[in-house]
Amino acid sequence: MKGARVISLNLATTRQVWGFKDAVDGCLRAGITAIAPWRDQIEAIGLDEAARIVKANGLQVTGVCRGGMFPAESAAGRQAQIDDNLRAIDQAAALNADCLVLVVGGLPGSSKDLPGARQMVTDGIAAMLPHAIASGVKIAIEPLHPMYAADRACVNTIDQALDICEQLGETVGVAIDVYHVWWDPKLAQAIARAGRMNRIFAHHICDWLVPTQDMLLDRGMMGDGVIDLPAIRQIIEAAGYFGPQEVEIFSQDNWWKRPGDEVLAVIKQRVATVC
Amino acid sequence: MKGARVISLNLATTRQVWGFKDAVDGCLRAGITAIAPWRDQIEAIGLDEAARIVKANGLQVTGVCRGGMFPAESAAGRQAQIDDNLRAIDQAAALNADCLVLVVGGLPGSSKDLPGARQMVTDGIAAMLPHAIASGVKIAIEPLHPMYAADRACVNTIDQALDICEQLGETVGVAIDVYHVWWDPKLAQAIARAGRMNRIFAHHICDWLVPTQDMLLDRGMMGDGVIDLPAIRQIIEAAGYFGPQEVEIFSQDNWWKRPGDEVLAVIKQRVATVC
Repeated sequence: MKGARVISLNLATTRQVWGFKDAVDGCLRAGITAIAPWRDQIEAIGLDEAARIVKANGLQVTGVCRGGMFPAESAAGRQAQIDDNLRAIDQAAALNADCLVLVVGGLPGSSKDLPGARQMVTDGIAAMLPHAIASGVKIAIEPLHPMYAADRACVNTIDQALDICEQLGETVGVAIDVYHVWWDPKLAQAIARAGRMNRIFAHHICDWLVPTQDMLLDRGMMGDGVIDLPAIRQIIEAAGYFGPQEVEIFSQDNWWKRPGDEVLAVIKQRVATVC
Repeated sequence: MKGARVISLNLATTRQVWGFKDAVDGCLRAGITAIAPWRDQIEAIGLDEAARIVKANGLQVTGVCRGGMFPAESAAGRQAQIDDNLRAIDQAAALNADCLVLVVGGLPGSSKDLPGARQMVTDGIAAMLPHAIASGVKIAIEPLHPMYAADRACVNTIDQALDICEQLGETVGVAIDVYHVWWDPKLAQAIARAGRMNRIFAHHICDWLVPTQDMLLDRGMMGDGVIDLPAIRQIIEAAGYFGPQEVEIFSQDNWWKRPGDEVLAVIKQRVATVC
């Protein structure tokens, strides 16, 4: 299986130059047949048309980005977030996506109660779970780098995500993005645990640049940073996951400024040589 | 013990306005009798004079910043770092410091071998250990936030630091800086473990701002960010540590621009009210 390096394009990578349809056309030109769209991109073209394009071209949708953002100060606010996640499940189901990716959210409002926010996340996923199961949509918790704990995601390690998965059952797994987890001293053990639980639902790649100029929008192309991508890939394969490597690069000053075809050409070259 | 909020000033907090002696004078004016100087500040005034000032004023030195930076590409480079750490031990001993704080270093050169860098850290501390023991200087590993794993410190959680401590014996402990560890889902368990091991050698405070404008130099004053300082303090006290809270704020656009006396007045007010 190791020779099969299937690439999925997370459409955030080309979001400044391509909408949903242009991105699909670009992928097809490059021989890439897996994508992970964002909900705003799906909604811009319309869910039915997005689904038609996916089906007509036999695309694999490795994930829909994103659900989550559960913590809110009020019960009504939390319910609104859950309702939004139910719509996200419908979108993922319509695209026959491998999973709905969750960026779970950080501290609500002016709260400093991190354990409380984390409980809201577990509760929120539990509330959306029946609809996910009924819709046949897997839920992938994406642990985000600890530097996002306050404002984006209070689930920050694979182990923490797996603890939630254990509570909620086999429909809930993890999306392993190297950018967020490469530093984890217990990474190998955590990935092995995810494998034993059959909960690796997605694998995202990019690179960590030194220096990093922006905490959100300065991710690197694979090979340009310090992450030992082959080593992590080997750990993930040893855990039983051989699915696509989904390329997700937020890069406002570099890759987002380049033509999409050029970005895809570089991605293909890097996946073939440094991943 | 809870009423006793002893403050130590980490002299990085006022480094743009005060050298060693000015900072001590400022602390004494503010009734603060504990400090944690940096080696460049000690060397600027001279070790003998720094030691004289500490002794003459009965100051507690809660730490000397900093040793560490062990990983290097060559054996000669690693030895040079160890030699520098031996000098740091001498400085800490001369000041009768509670500990020498280690920022252990990140990936050497163009390496992507994080486990290898981590082994260099353990090996480096082991190499300096006999001199530390002979000098009566405790070594405090400071786990740094994972966003510094590549370029500053590849020890990124308290648990990871404690694993090293277990290998190296009772002279090696941890400095718990809330900025670096507040996000850790296993924080309470890790601090409790550190307490059971009697290895909490220092406790640093500041705050995590949202948004954070700079990954290194935008730390917040206690109370201005999202860290639940009283909760963490409670966990640390439950683990048996009642030593000073050392205030260490890197803040190039705010606190570093203010007069030192003003900064100390705010620190005292915040420690009394929000820590």
